[in-house]
Amino acid sequence: MGNPQDGMQRYAACVEYCGVRYAGWQRQKHAPSVQEAVERAISRVADCRVGVVAAGRTDTGVHGSGQILHFDTPNLREEVSWLRGVNTWLPDDISLLWTRPVEGEFHARHKALERHYRYVILNREVSPSYLHGRVTWFRWPLDVEAMRAAAGGLLGTHDFSAFRAAGCQSLNPIKELRRLDIGHAGQWIWFDVSADGFLHHMVRNLVGVLCAIGQGEALPGWAAEVLASRDRKQGGVTFPPDGLYFSGADYAPDWGLPPPPPVCRFW
Amino acid sequence: MGNPQDGMQRYAACVEYCGVRYAGWQRQKHAPSVQEAVERAISRVADCRVGVVAAGRTDTGVHGSGQILHFDTPNLREEVSWLRGVNTWLPDDISLLWTRPVEGEFHARHKALERHYRYVILNREVSPSYLHGRVTWFRWPLDVEAMRAAAGGLLGTHDFSAFRAAGCQSLNPIKELRRLDIGHAGQWIWFDVSADGFLHHMVRNLVGVLCAIGQGEALPGWAAEVLASRDRKQGGVTFPPDGLYFSGADYAPDWGLPPPPPVCRFW
Repeated sequence: MGNPQDGMQRYAACVEYCGVRYAGWQRQKHAPSVQEAVERAISRVADCRVGVVAAGRTDTGVHGSGQILHFDTPNLREEVSWLRGVNTWLPDDISLLWTRPVEGEFHARHKALERHYRYVILNREVSPSYLHGRVTWFRWPLDVEAMRAAAGGLLGTHDFSAFRAAGCQSLNPIKELRRLDIGHAGQWIWFDVSADGFLHHMVRNLVGVLCAIGQGEALPGWAAEVLASRDRKQGGVTFPPDGLYFSGADYAPDWGLPPPPPVCRFW
Repeated sequence: MGNPQDGMQRYAACVEYCGVRYAGWQRQKHAPSVQEAVERAISRVADCRVGVVAAGRTDTGVHGSGQILHFDTPNLREEVSWLRGVNTWLPDDISLLWTRPVEGEFHARHKALERHYRYVILNREVSPSYLHGRVTWFRWPLDVEAMRAAAGGLLGTHDFSAFRAAGCQSLNPIKELRRLDIGHAGQWIWFDVSADGFLHHMVRNLVGVLCAIGQGEALPGWAAEVLASRDRKQGGVTFPPDGLYFSGADYAPDWGLPPPPPVCRFW
């Protein structure tokens, strides 16, 4: 989707969703997707067929707490009409947080300067119940300091091929990892990960390597070794989607978008 | 269920559950209940038919983050065997947190000195998505200070008939409300409510009156007026079960039970 056609207004929007019931963000022929549900609801209010483009395509079971998207429509609506109307048509597990009219050059994917994910782990012996599917359960004790030491060796601009899924369609495996903070409170451990862009499964593979280190299966230096190998086979397991949230994307302030929504937390 | 029969060992246990899929705690003939699922899982590990008694019976859709129960069995097991075994047989939305052998006089309901509930509200214009069913959505701004002023007028020993559902089976409407604290952080508002016992729908009716006051529909003094009327028709709406958690019960320290599990939180 390039610039909008004549007579069309471009809107930016922010949605929040639970990935449990969906085969990911992207529209699929034979499985429910978040994109399909969002497009259907926006089309109802716009009174014409509307397609949306998202900042980040999330996988099956992955959630969004601050997914940014854009769409074009010839039919303008007030902010409150989009918000109430679209949320009326959305299912219970997807919410529209805001919309804003933007200049036609805005593009949710191409203009994103930085993307953010949060990965949330419940670290206790017993699996979650009322947060099943919303957080990842890890039953073995984790050494947070060892994980933090390991995380430090991954920051910066690198070829992240070792953390890239086989089917990844990204043209370039070189990304700048700008933030990899590990929070810890009680039974909760969470990872805040920011980069200019992400490879397929990159966050889940990073968390897999860090948790192997946290569990004592490898020394903190192993994370940088895996990175340097550029070989996915050197890395650990791909962690489950349950605890992963696409939590936001940053754009130049000139676009005039609202500040990012609060990131999900459970502790 | 009185004291255990000869040759039987009594155990105390703590479970956590998501109420969304269940017609409440108590066993029903034609609807799934948490009790039924817990009894089935414990019976598998005990290798005989086991019934359980809970500290508090929760309604349809109400959750537990620290439900206490007891059961009797002739077949003793180690703590780790109960924990791993029972959790293997429990569905994803129920978790056993611990078990402890206790003296036969222990009774989860009769020996509870105090019960605790937490009620969690997401207070924003847009409904929750990944926490749908786990928190209550309230879209109108709430004046927390007004609610706190109102809550102060409800503390103490009173006849709580005005906050009691029509079908309540409690023998005595007089309860001692020992704690009614209102927390506030960003878009989250939560109520921590403790009493020697609760009437049917009491927490949801208390929250209904307090939110009417928070919304400005009544002055803070109205809560005490409703209380004094002892008339359910004077009160506000019964708030939904979504944000309600049975978060624990206190017993005399002599019983040697573990400390209460951390209460659910989302902010």
